[in-house]
Amino acid sequence: MADQKKLVEDITSMEEDFAKWYTDIVKKAELIEYTSVKGCMVIRPYGYAIWEHMQRILDGMFKATGHENVCMPMFIPESLLQKEKDHVEGFAPEVAWVTHGGNEKLEERLCVRPTSETLFCEHYANIIQSHRDLPKLYNQWVSVVRWEKTTRPFLRSREFLWQEGHTIHATAEEAIEETERMLNVYADFCEQYLAMPVVKGKKTESDKFAGAVSTYAIEALMHDGKALQAGTSHYFGDGFAKAFGIQYQSKENKLEYPHQTSWGVTTRLIGAIIMTHGDNNGLVLPPAVAPIQAVIIPVAAHKPGVLEKANELKDTLAAAGIRVKLDDSDNSPGWKFSEYEMKGVPVRIELGPRDIESGNCVLVTRHNREKTITPLDGVADSVKAKLQEVRDALYQSALANRERRTYDCKTLDEITKALEEKGDGFVRAMWCGDEACEDKVKELTGVGSRCIPFEQAQLSDVCVCCGKPAKHLVMWGKAY
Amino acid sequence: MADQKKLVEDITSMEEDFAKWYTDIVKKAELIEYTSVKGCMVIRPYGYAIWEHMQRILDGMFKATGHENVCMPMFIPESLLQKEKDHVEGFAPEVAWVTHGGNEKLEERLCVRPTSETLFCEHYANIIQSHRDLPKLYNQWVSVVRWEKTTRPFLRSREFLWQEGHTIHATAEEAIEETERMLNVYADFCEQYLAMPVVKGKKTESDKFAGAVSTYAIEALMHDGKALQAGTSHYFGDGFAKAFGIQYQSKENKLEYPHQTSWGVTTRLIGAIIMTHGDNNGLVLPPAVAPIQAVIIPVAAHKPGVLEKANELKDTLAAAGIRVKLDDSDNSPGWKFSEYEMKGVPVRIELGPRDIESGNCVLVTRHNREKTITPLDGVADSVKAKLQEVRDALYQSALANRERRTYDCKTLDEITKALEEKGDGFVRAMWCGDEACEDKVKELTGVGSRCIPFEQAQLSDVCVCCGKPAKHLVMWGKAY
Repeated sequence: MADQKKLVEDITSMEEDFAKWYTDIVKKAELIEYTSVKGCMVIRPYGYAIWEHMQRILDGMFKATGHENVCMPMFIPESLLQKEKDHVEGFAPEVAWVTHGGNEKLEERLCVRPTSETLFCEHYANIIQSHRDLPKLYNQWVSVVRWEKTTRPFLRSREFLWQEGHTIHATAEEAIEETERMLNVYADFCEQYLAMPVVKGKKTESDKFAGAVSTYAIEALMHDGKALQAGTSHYFGDGFAKAFGIQYQSKENKLEYPHQTSWGVTTRLIGAIIMTHGDNNGLVLPPAVAPIQAVIIPVAAHKPGVLEKANELKDTLAAAGIRVKLDDSDNSPGWKFSEYEMKGVPVRIELGPRDIESGNCVLVTRHNREKTITPLDGVADSVKAKLQEVRDALYQSALANRERRTYDCKTLDEITKALEEKGDGFVRAMWCGDEACEDKVKELTGVGSRCIPFEQAQLSDVCVCCGKPAKHLVMWGKAY
Repeated sequence: MADQKKLVEDITSMEEDFAKWYTDIVKKAELIEYTSVKGCMVIRPYGYAIWEHMQRILDGMFKATGHENVCMPMFIPESLLQKEKDHVEGFAPEVAWVTHGGNEKLEERLCVRPTSETLFCEHYANIIQSHRDLPKLYNQWVSVVRWEKTTRPFLRSREFLWQEGHTIHATAEEAIEETERMLNVYADFCEQYLAMPVVKGKKTESDKFAGAVSTYAIEALMHDGKALQAGTSHYFGDGFAKAFGIQYQSKENKLEYPHQTSWGVTTRLIGAIIMTHGDNNGLVLPPAVAPIQAVIIPVAAHKPGVLEKANELKDTLAAAGIRVKLDDSDNSPGWKFSEYEMKGVPVRIELGPRDIESGNCVLVTRHNREKTITPLDGVADSVKAKLQEVRDALYQSALANRERRTYDCKTLDEITKALEEKGDGFVRAMWCGDEACEDKVKELTGVGSRCIPFEQAQLSDVCVCCGKPAKHLVMWGKAY
């Protein structure tokens, strides 16, 4: 079989070069392909299918919490982007500008949305008059553009796919509640469906979204001990409403400014999955978002009855709602094993003449290669149970990795020592709340503040940096 | 109720001003809202939900015919757009150009995709080597930008949502088969789910897609007798493959050029629904894509038991898979009737104390306002049957309108006379195949060639224009 591609042989091991290991998987599992525009990628069918499953689940969670989908234009006039001062300062340096339509120069240049707060605000100003028009709980699934200097597939690209929720409420309380609700939705999604434990917390002032009163985030720890911001939820107060002149008539007939939020997760979550669950044989996918949950590989497929039985098995599993593929191509079973390991398919099912004779098949779980001889009778339930087992095992393993790599430190020296001895990870240390200390910690130890976790603890009474009274426990780390 | 909006009073009648009637519906049914960028609109929740239902159904049809979703970047470098001569000539005059990223001028300007043939070709050149890599049956759901001078919501906007299928095959036969297959998928979708009859045919040479060997289209007739192109499917031959250097090694070990297709439908279909089924009370939605299929309006809702029974009814219908809404707001029933008529909800269910006493409710179908007293026992099946009835009635009514407005003509005078006496419509007339005659028909009668229908007939032996031997029956019309 001359044109079989090499698979496993070509992956760099993560211990040797983590960044190379990551891009090897991204390419060899056929998630993306590069294009001639730097930082813009093709998301290939296998990668896009993972995103479709994420979308389907999240969209259901958004709708269950009362949200509706809309679609805003992709272009923002320069004057509109400039209406909220902090917001434009944050985004203007990294937007792509459209200056010509056909052969004509535009009167005003347009940026390709880097995020859509300004468009939603313009729309809200048009459609909101009365308290009866509130709240609006909107979301959209689109792509956005940020002209980054350095790019990496899924983690930081010039164009990426995301959803952006934008809501507007009569009161600050309602808006804050929404901000927290959506952070919890994201955390549940990551933990339940992606099997990825996250830390929920608040960003420090220096790390807030441009224009926000407060930014909440979920942070996850990758295999290499670096932190990845997996989702954010922002509370805007009435700052945007004031900048855009959005007012409503209250029940008491007074003109009031409403309060806003926005929240988003992106295709970056695919990168998070790779770096949370992947191994040196390739991708390891959590079952909920795996395009193929179980692959059937016939052994000695030429023997009478094997393919028939394999097809029967496929139909049984598909009828039970399992995303199943039968690979009856003429590649060797060993080659197929490697291919579907590379693609991270959670369960492989081997089926040969001897299995059939004894009324069994063999289930092999991707993450630990454990084999279970399983009766064909009732096999759909067994596979479902196995998929749940896989999710739980992936979660526990990621959690154990995070715990192993979370260091409680009381001094800067302790931080430096922990990172040197145990490798990168989350550092938990107290902070006085002063930005100068935040900067100094980063400068001296290399870890920046990731968030102020909702789950606080009093590790010490004083700031890890200056020794003044501590205000918060902060989670520090090196970030993607 | 002071802040109730006016609804029906404000619609222009379609007889008075069809264009105004259309935009009134688009705004008052809350499908779109304008933005400060000309030709770019906000698709509001009710409009977007219609698109989501279209997407869900079409996506299922695409996947059932073996297609996979991908996602290409939104930017095309100028040099890439220029690789296929006819294609760039067709699109360059109407693209939006990105010239700056942040504060820096780009080395090469990028256009925002007006369509993605060039991006798919670049990708195919990267991933296709062998006959084993063929076919690729790809689709993507994205928005595209065309810098139109005159714009109308859904019908012609500078940014619009669509799907674009792009496939590549070993042989011309396979590609042509695919082109036809997808045209049939579109026709089935329009007829079954949108209740909109379409004519399938081939475009003349002058009306082909830029770069195509042949373009197929489905054409529908609107209330005002104008034709609307509802979907297109293009066969490219190996022209793009040659321009982009895509080659594969055949089974016989020879280097060959593959053959390509593309096909698309857009949010324009929402405009088609409005102009096919709408009336002077507002939108009329085909049940398959209606965000709300049945709305329950309690009558004398303050009377004991009415709201309880209405909620019970809602749960019953929802459990049966019907998209149902209960409007228990304090607006008057009459006001609610108008609102849901404006929004085109196919079935209204009235439920008051007397209905409940007799164990009934009243079903009112939107398109003809017919009332049916229906037992609450078994009501879900009755509503489902009613929704099917509505679909069939809408289809028959649209078909009758098209037949009434289809004129068989043998001379240019007959065309002029038919249009004058009976109003705009489809003209069926023979054509010699000469572009000069095509132009002359349009110049003298106002109707252009819409397509050469697959269903041919020999109305006469000679061209309607020049009198030379006729080659084809052509469907002519004024187009959106």
